Amino acid sequence: MAVELFNRDGHVCLAFYDLVDEEQDHAVQCNQFLISDHGHGALIDPGGNMTYNSLLMAMQKYFPSKELHYILASHPDPDIIASVNKWFVASPCKVMISALWTRFVPHFTTGRDVTGRIEGIPDAGMDIRLGECRIKAIPAHFMHAEGNFQFYDPLSKILFSGDLGVSLVDHARAAEPVADFDAHIPLMEGFHRRYIVSNKVLRFWAHMVRQLDIEMIVPQHGQRFVGKAMVKRFVDWIEQLPCGVDLMTQDNYRIP
Amino acid sequence: MAVELFNRDGHVCLAFYDLVDEEQDHAVQCNQFLISDHGHGALIDPGGNMTYNSLLMAMQKYFPSKELHYILASHPDPDIIASVNKWFVASPCKVMISALWTRFVPHFTTGRDVTGRIEGIPDAGMDIRLGECRIKAIPAHFMHAEGNFQFYDPLSKILFSGDLGVSLVDHARAAEPVADFDAHIPLMEGFHRRYIVSNKVLRFWAHMVRQLDIEMIVPQHGQRFVGKAMVKRFVDWIEQLPCGVDLMTQDNYRIP
Repeated sequence: MAVELFNRDGHVCLAFYDLVDEEQDHAVQCNQFLISDHGHGALIDPGGNMTYNSLLMAMQKYFPSKELHYILASHPDPDIIASVNKWFVASPCKVMISALWTRFVPHFTTGRDVTGRIEGIPDAGMDIRLGECRIKAIPAHFMHAEGNFQFYDPLSKILFSGDLGVSLVDHARAAEPVADFDAHIPLMEGFHRRYIVSNKVLRFWAHMVRQLDIEMIVPQHGQRFVGKAMVKRFVDWIEQLPCGVDLMTQDNYRIP
Repeated sequence: MAVELFNRDGHVCLAFYDLVDEEQDHAVQCNQFLISDHGHGALIDPGGNMTYNSLLMAMQKYFPSKELHYILASHPDPDIIASVNKWFVASPCKVMISALWTRFVPHFTTGRDVTGRIEGIPDAGMDIRLGECRIKAIPAHFMHAEGNFQFYDPLSKILFSGDLGVSLVDHARAAEPVADFDAHIPLMEGFHRRYIVSNKVLRFWAHMVRQLDIEMIVPQHGQRFVGKAMVKRFVDWIEQLPCGVDLMTQDNYRIP
């Protein structure tokens, strides 16, 4: 069942937490998102082949397939956009993804030339017009992919943070907001230490997002952070986390 | 047409340089590899949907589909293994990939439980038995994916280096060995600076591979490095290259 994150004056943000059953599907739990503005729609990180049918049906309540204008992709991993070929067939959507990955996306597709339907987001980010609103593509390079974006919706004040803020929990728990930040840390820490590339870029990211008015941080796996106090806890925590190459030594690079 | 990199005493290494036509397919040029040992086969980084049919047909000369034991995947990008669902159907193969990505691979697939056919390579690497030989999975984390492996074949002394050593050229040129290292640098430099994560891990990698007996470095895009002198030039060059997060500043992380 979709969770309504925001719904006011013709602007809706939904999160899907249960389209992947991590037990039954033997795959990492992941979340998909929909933004609808006055009947115009975008999907954020719609996922792989196992989420496609449910998401296609669910979105019809908010806009018809022909009004799906965008797939906003944080990066090109399979749990993010392995379903892209199906979305190209079912709708007129464009894929917005880091310019680093535009020529990799066609490897998901078959047959037709899809060049005109893949638009590169420049490294500096951009505003993306949807209906009467604008979604901001915010630089999040190396968190974790080399070319990586988060999507900020100024109307709902939600930051869709991709793989930053991820927690590894089951899909039932994923649908609940984080209640106790300290108790939540063990569910996040291992992932961030190994999959996020370096503390250097986390500090740049923290400095940047403190200038945004954020009510909610919603990652692509696991639970969301709701309210300014919880958002601040997350930003302060991640800013000081050593991770990725910070933790690598010659011991990690030996001939087996 | 496949390029024969090695063929002696029942052990064959092939490279496919022209299954993706970067102009016609509007996708990044990429190479696929086959290792056959006494009728047992493995594919390295077999690619996306556009390479599947040709590769399936070409490999029959060396072993039948039922003898395809492994897909060895350097990392989980679409140009590496978006075709994995088709290979699962067409053969009994297992996918060997960094343990960081085993639960992401099922997002490429539909329907069946494929857990038993995806095997995680531990961070330290491992030996993979194929026919009468062993292929070494060598740690190459953060070059570029967080969990990333190269594959070294001790019989042919070839290092299949994934995204390290990549050059951006057309498929005709990709099939030729590098002739002039200095002239080749401009074809590699931009890619490595933006897609490889940090010089720190390049130095660990260089120190590690100097202990291997390498006759050829064969990357997944572009041209290969043949002969010990050319291999040394590449290792010495990459060891000193600043890249990825080394080059990032707060300017790369600003609200657009």
